[in-house]
Amino acid sequence: MTNRNVLVLDTTLRDGEQVPGAKLNTLQKIEFAQQLKRLNVDMIEAGFPASSQGDFHAVQQIAKKVGDQISITALARAVKSDIDAVYESIKLAQNPFIHIVLGTSNIHLEKKFARSEDAVMQMGVDAVKYAKTLLPEVQYSTEDASRSDFEYLWRTIEAVVKAGATIINVPDTVGYAVPEEFGDLVRRINERLKTLNDKVILSVHCHNDLGMATANTLSAIKNGAEKVECTINGLGERAGNTSLEEVVMGLKVRENFYGCTTRIQTKEILQTSRLLTHLTGLDVQVNKAITGDNAFAHSSGIHQDGLLKDKNVYEIMSPEEVGGEKMELILTARSGRHAFKNAVERMGFSVSSTEEFEMLFEKFITLADAKKEVYDHDVFYLVTEHLNQPQSRGHLYELASFQVVTNDQYPTASIELKKGDDVLRGSSIGDGPIDALYSVIKTLTDLDVQLIHYKINSISRGKEAVGRVHLQISCDGKTYTGRAMDTDIIKASAIAYLNSINAVILDQMELEEDLVEQ
Amino acid sequence: MTNRNVLVLDTTLRDGEQVPGAKLNTLQKIEFAQQLKRLNVDMIEAGFPASSQGDFHAVQQIAKKVGDQISITALARAVKSDIDAVYESIKLAQNPFIHIVLGTSNIHLEKKFARSEDAVMQMGVDAVKYAKTLLPEVQYSTEDASRSDFEYLWRTIEAVVKAGATIINVPDTVGYAVPEEFGDLVRRINERLKTLNDKVILSVHCHNDLGMATANTLSAIKNGAEKVECTINGLGERAGNTSLEEVVMGLKVRENFYGCTTRIQTKEILQTSRLLTHLTGLDVQVNKAITGDNAFAHSSGIHQDGLLKDKNVYEIMSPEEVGGEKMELILTARSGRHAFKNAVERMGFSVSSTEEFEMLFEKFITLADAKKEVYDHDVFYLVTEHLNQPQSRGHLYELASFQVVTNDQYPTASIELKKGDDVLRGSSIGDGPIDALYSVIKTLTDLDVQLIHYKINSISRGKEAVGRVHLQISCDGKTYTGRAMDTDIIKASAIAYLNSINAVILDQMELEEDLVEQ
Repeated sequence: MTNRNVLVLDTTLRDGEQVPGAKLNTLQKIEFAQQLKRLNVDMIEAGFPASSQGDFHAVQQIAKKVGDQISITALARAVKSDIDAVYESIKLAQNPFIHIVLGTSNIHLEKKFARSEDAVMQMGVDAVKYAKTLLPEVQYSTEDASRSDFEYLWRTIEAVVKAGATIINVPDTVGYAVPEEFGDLVRRINERLKTLNDKVILSVHCHNDLGMATANTLSAIKNGAEKVECTINGLGERAGNTSLEEVVMGLKVRENFYGCTTRIQTKEILQTSRLLTHLTGLDVQVNKAITGDNAFAHSSGIHQDGLLKDKNVYEIMSPEEVGGEKMELILTARSGRHAFKNAVERMGFSVSSTEEFEMLFEKFITLADAKKEVYDHDVFYLVTEHLNQPQSRGHLYELASFQVVTNDQYPTASIELKKGDDVLRGSSIGDGPIDALYSVIKTLTDLDVQLIHYKINSISRGKEAVGRVHLQISCDGKTYTGRAMDTDIIKASAIAYLNSINAVILDQMELEEDLVEQ
Repeated sequence: MTNRNVLVLDTTLRDGEQVPGAKLNTLQKIEFAQQLKRLNVDMIEAGFPASSQGDFHAVQQIAKKVGDQISITALARAVKSDIDAVYESIKLAQNPFIHIVLGTSNIHLEKKFARSEDAVMQMGVDAVKYAKTLLPEVQYSTEDASRSDFEYLWRTIEAVVKAGATIINVPDTVGYAVPEEFGDLVRRINERLKTLNDKVILSVHCHNDLGMATANTLSAIKNGAEKVECTINGLGERAGNTSLEEVVMGLKVRENFYGCTTRIQTKEILQTSRLLTHLTGLDVQVNKAITGDNAFAHSSGIHQDGLLKDKNVYEIMSPEEVGGEKMELILTARSGRHAFKNAVERMGFSVSSTEEFEMLFEKFITLADAKKEVYDHDVFYLVTEHLNQPQSRGHLYELASFQVVTNDQYPTASIELKKGDDVLRGSSIGDGPIDALYSVIKTLTDLDVQLIHYKINSISRGKEAVGRVHLQISCDGKTYTGRAMDTDIIKASAIAYLNSINAVILDQMELEEDLVEQ
């Protein structure tokens, strides 16, 4: 018997990005979508365009940039304005589809909508009919399906399929399902659905509140689901969504049980996971399945002994299958342009011009001089930091010079900033060097920002450590991130803070442009 | 029908502690075991005593300190010396039992042991018979059971039960199982086992390599398993073990499906998770089910709207059920002794003397002055840092004073250390302030240590941020951790480094004592 192919939709940019602090800007979203293309997902849910002008714009850009090869969708509530926003943002993609979500559980009907079953169902039917006037492909999600009355759930599915829905998505919205039950639910729906219209695709969307999203999704596949919705690293609200990497590798490692495959390029999994961690600053825990730092590590004496004899004793998949070997090459200051270019390209980046490559190479040499041994993750960081640097220089702050003195008395920071041709100088004391540094920067830039979260990570695998600073600030109720790396954590802290302040300035400039457009 | 009770064994201190970088010292292990007592686990696997003198000692201490109320076990391979080590280390507990592990899969038999089925089975039988001469309760683990030939697996179980084993533990050692299969395996074993001897307890032990440890464990419970082996936060080798918190809350939230309960005090779950994070320095990812920072957070507009109408719309359990509300009280410098004492006791600490309490209170006031708002996690950190401070002062280093200057030129650190009556002073330049600081400390303390990992976290929920430094160093092939918190990250970095160096010194002193003992 040949294996059945399961479609994979990645919703990291929609359901994942709703996580506090995971907000990405448009450039970052495009970068991530391009990595999803290398990962070869079948579909990307790119955002929730009705939620904000920024989200609309990002979905539109993703549809333009990767919508030639990957099917693009975006989320709409069952209202005309949401559906219009989705259509307008995704219409430039080759295979766009509209995704409509509406609750079917009693608790949703009573507490959220305070409407009758029939009235809510009619909202769904009307929404699908309207969406069909815009695009041929429409997905309908029966929100909270796992807590819904089965007959009402089925009547809704029947009605929206008759109205033209081409994909039925069954979400376990609150992560309440268990594999036996959820598989059974999918089997029952699938039996009736195939009788009703065997062209309609059955999809599932699980959440991980009880730690069973992966098992529920795989159980659904075993029982007939043809499409799964996932996020990288399981990123998502609360305990997150189904981890793409776990479902894909589960199907691969246990092909004998599931009899299904996906089109995912598994060798891109680790790279995609690392990119997301880098972009959001949200670390994956070391023992996360597939993508954690220790996922393939073996430490105990007993296991090492077994592994030496035969790695199958304790290893059901190899790190190479998920792209593990890509992380291992070490560069030095003597590696030269060719080796550096190889490293950059192996990580999926393309450098457009010789001039840009030379700028990158110069940064690489500086880093290699400081750090002696440069790992792939360093190169990755260097390139992404470079690509993220905005071009509209004149409006943004740069660190010209700094001095920080810290002791038991008065930690003091003195700095010089540049903004276009302006030079700003000042100093401040603080409770510590970072407090002093951020006080003076705040005074000089005159923005009302609050530091929310500040983190430094340094993994010294070579001779010298490089500190990576990741921070979040808030300004006018919005969250902005800043990142930087340097052997000097004080310098990196200053640059990361300036980057976050520059993000505020860029956002305010974008908002002004949006207002002009409207 | 009344609910069936499921026994919970926590193996964080054995299978969890095997993780790279998660090594705990004896004091830390006792502290964690005491929290497991508050969590009310039924059994603790405290270590692998044959692996090292330190592990033996730690198991012995845990058996003494918490073995009056909780059943204690430790791991042995199927050899006499391992079983002796377990017996000697746990015999002072009230209800100790010996845990013997031996492989049953073909891959283990052929690749690891290179012995025949019967020869390996005989090793197991002999081991159980020997263990029974020491203690009445013996657990036998059929390692790699999920990849074993069922008939051989059953013959082994039958033989070891006849030899006297009182608990049969079925491990999915490599995280290969899926819930349908694993449940079926447990059901088949259970049917035969209950016919053979209905007093024998059936147990399972799962790993999370494909992200299904929780679902596999729950499926096993549904199919008859009476005892489960878990770790807090799912800590464990590779992708870790089954998360205790997920299984316990899965049974609680889905009691209607599983019909089982545990004796776990769920309100202690978050505290236990935070303690483990603090002790190991291994963070839980924000979207980890139950114990992640975002596990109960709601951010998207849609969900917030639903939540305001009725929290059941998007919440299947409340943060209060796992002890969430405990984290919320805010203290200030004006809170006074009573409020501070309450906070300390609410987190499960008992302060032995008035003198000790006054020392703690003084530290609290200093912190409150610097930070304005003091959260429970700050108090928690303050108390644990205080309790962890070794008393053998004369041999250890203290930071007397320091000054660090960093700029674009030469980051420079100057410090004064004390060790008993000795005063050591020096300075160094470096690639950054931390490099300079650690260079001079390394020179002054004259120990050959390498910095492996360095991390600073600061979550500013109040007015001022406190940086928490966590680092790992290696010395003579062993890993040591250091931690400190301060509003000045440079000062915190210095203290954390000195703490890790002091850990090396303490370890070397303990080793000398061990040599004297032997």
